[in-house]
Amino acid sequence: MKILVTGAAGFIGSNLVDRLLADGHEITGFDNFSTGQAEFLAAAMRSPHFRLEHGDLLDTDALDRAMDHAEFVFHMAANADVRFGTQHPRRDLEQNTIGTANVLEAMRARGVRRIAFPSTGSVYGEPAIFPTPEDAPFPVQTSLYAASKLAAEAMIEAYCEGFGMQAHIFRFVSILGERYTHGHILDFYKQLREHSGHLDILGDGRQRKSYLYVQDCVDAMLLAIEGGAGRLNLYNLGTDEYCTVNDSIGWIAERLGCAPRLNYAGGERGWVGDSPFIFLDCSRIRALGWRPKLSIREAVVRTVDYLRGNTWVVERR
Amino acid sequence: MKILVTGAAGFIGSNLVDRLLADGHEITGFDNFSTGQAEFLAAAMRSPHFRLEHGDLLDTDALDRAMDHAEFVFHMAANADVRFGTQHPRRDLEQNTIGTANVLEAMRARGVRRIAFPSTGSVYGEPAIFPTPEDAPFPVQTSLYAASKLAAEAMIEAYCEGFGMQAHIFRFVSILGERYTHGHILDFYKQLREHSGHLDILGDGRQRKSYLYVQDCVDAMLLAIEGGAGRLNLYNLGTDEYCTVNDSIGWIAERLGCAPRLNYAGGERGWVGDSPFIFLDCSRIRALGWRPKLSIREAVVRTVDYLRGNTWVVERR
Repeated sequence: MKILVTGAAGFIGSNLVDRLLADGHEITGFDNFSTGQAEFLAAAMRSPHFRLEHGDLLDTDALDRAMDHAEFVFHMAANADVRFGTQHPRRDLEQNTIGTANVLEAMRARGVRRIAFPSTGSVYGEPAIFPTPEDAPFPVQTSLYAASKLAAEAMIEAYCEGFGMQAHIFRFVSILGERYTHGHILDFYKQLREHSGHLDILGDGRQRKSYLYVQDCVDAMLLAIEGGAGRLNLYNLGTDEYCTVNDSIGWIAERLGCAPRLNYAGGERGWVGDSPFIFLDCSRIRALGWRPKLSIREAVVRTVDYLRGNTWVVERR
Repeated sequence: MKILVTGAAGFIGSNLVDRLLADGHEITGFDNFSTGQAEFLAAAMRSPHFRLEHGDLLDTDALDRAMDHAEFVFHMAANADVRFGTQHPRRDLEQNTIGTANVLEAMRARGVRRIAFPSTGSVYGEPAIFPTPEDAPFPVQTSLYAASKLAAEAMIEAYCEGFGMQAHIFRFVSILGERYTHGHILDFYKQLREHSGHLDILGDGRQRKSYLYVQDCVDAMLLAIEGGAGRLNLYNLGTDEYCTVNDSIGWIAERLGCAPRLNYAGGERGWVGDSPFIFLDCSRIRALGWRPKLSIREAVVRTVDYLRGNTWVVERR
């Protein structure tokens, strides 16, 4: 199949590209390299079945060129920075909301009818039900990032209804693994490289979070897309477990062989809009036969090992 | 209080302006007059407490000027055309989503912390629960209009969380009454003026819809704002009843003294993305003591009378 992957040079996008190429697809990668890394596409660039279009989602001409001949779109490009959303309120609107509108319009112009979209468990805001199912009560948004992902979901749904498109929307927990480029493990690893004796922690360390290994995430998306025949297919993607920030710190420190003193900033949330508890009900995707291969602990350790073997990622950020 | 009303020349906005002036507030009206009517502001323009800023929500300089000295914002400006959304997919994104983002940024820049926002019962998509409460299951969007209103709700919520703003969000059913400028009553009235012997109807006439009289709508908003102390206050606004399109046709024809032959286009929905049943649970706003003064039938008749007395509205559209 001819597939456009936006955000192809990103953490999840590049892992997806490698898998799709291995599965025999023809891939066009689209990226503005704002956070994507050329190194992540090194293998893909050697494939005759991969073509790279350098461009931004706000450049509709570039997007239109990238859409040429596509039969399916994995729209992975996004501003994935949740924590600093309030420092640049326009970024989520432009890169996530308007960017997705542009992708949908380019699809419509080219007659491309199938899209897969990574949303986020953050769209549930601070839910009252755990694990949180896809049809949880109408949520209240607590971050600009989640608001922009919800806006994108909503537009995709309206395009499905209005223009007969088919969509797979996945609400991710935080993803870990090879090519991980931002998030708490990177922050902690970076600190412990500089000073293994102490670690500064946002919040009180008791925030409960869910994580998923990137290859498990890619497996789940591909399985869902293979099976999904309906117009709109919506899945939570995560493991059936959660951990605290303190759990994660323990695993990271153990793997690095250090025992830092822990300095907590305090408070239930790591930052404004941080959700103190994320735990998704993933029975819908599990009903398709999918099971994650790594536990959260194994995924954390795998990510630490990746960063140790690729310190350029840490140095560049 | 110094209040900015965006969409001040619109159907609901202009009724709100008149009420706020009568209540002794200082009003700045903002409108691009794309659908707003100068006639609707004729009374307001005679008041020394009203100032008009002609501008579009995408013109951030004009918006910034309008925001000057405001203490409260009624952000009523919107593309309110639901039915033709698929003919111009960009309009909802620009006027509703990006427009609201611009209002929020202008508020932040000026330190304005309170906003009231009219959303729509359409954000519930095609719900499974009737009457539909504010915390209905996470909905799927079926129109670009509702998607853009949901996006705006989500951004407002994130600004409340991220920047300490206070919001009142109202999910309206369709509003009727004086200065009504678009919707099924106008369509039917226009047809029956031209040919009282027959009426073309989108759908099968059995769509069930809720309506609310514009003065009842304004009453409800002002009451909620007066009482609401929380950061985010979200209310459905409608009557505790619904009617079918056929009911409405009967009332309109009776008022006009005609008995048209009815030609149904057929189908459960009037257009792509039309919701065949809208009926909101309004117990939350009723708990504040609010009661609508007009029934749906009375509001329909009042609207017909308004159009008969103001045929220029019909001729201009």
